[in-house]
Amino acid sequence: MVTGNLFANVPGQLANEAVEELLSAPNVRIERIVSIGHATAADEWYDQDRAEWVLILAGSAGLLFEGDAEPHPLVPGSYVHIPAHRRHRVAWTDRSVPTIWLAIHYQ
Amino acid sequence: MVTGNLFANVPGQLANEAVEELLSAPNVRIERIVSIGHATAADEWYDQDRAEWVLILAGSAGLLFEGDAEPHPLVPGSYVHIPAHRRHRVAWTDRSVPTIWLAIHYQ
Repeated sequence: MVTGNLFANVPGQLANEAVEELLSAPNVRIERIVSIGHATAADEWYDQDRAEWVLILAGSAGLLFEGDAEPHPLVPGSYVHIPAHRRHRVAWTDRSVPTIWLAIHYQ
Repeated sequence: MVTGNLFANVPGQLANEAVEELLSAPNVRIERIVSIGHATAADEWYDQDRAEWVLILAGSAGLLFEGDAEPHPLVPGSYVHIPAHRRHRVAWTDRSVPTIWLAIHYQ
């Protein structure tokens, strides 16, 4: 049985975002991502071939979609569906506590 | 943009488990399930055609797999992968607070 806890082994400092694969299947990939103050580089956008459903479990973040004036604020429990090729970037994540994301990439 | 918060609109009383579909795609279905003391009927097992990845966000529960002596205890952050046709049942859920599950069914 594959089991674990998303709140276990959360790093307190990180040079880069920590991405841990929790499930990998042909149509679905589930990841835990931990950010501490990380953001997408200012001139970069994510443009993904697969749709993504993302959930915040701890911390906070701002998710900006191309064409929007302001980032969409995310707090624990917040989820967002990101269609394939919907350009977006992480504008900011909490600097004081780890932000824990659950990302479900699917086709 | 499809967005929301899994901790919003949590019912305080329920005759039956509350299942809310958050995403429905050909290969993936994501649901929020709220239980308050609910359990699978004693003589029943879930036997699902699709695999499931399940996460507890609040409350607590015991998940029993056929052939195991004791239920596997789940607390916030706990996740479990349930292969297709792995028979299982919810032995118990917290009676004092709502238990919030995120269930990802996939093929």
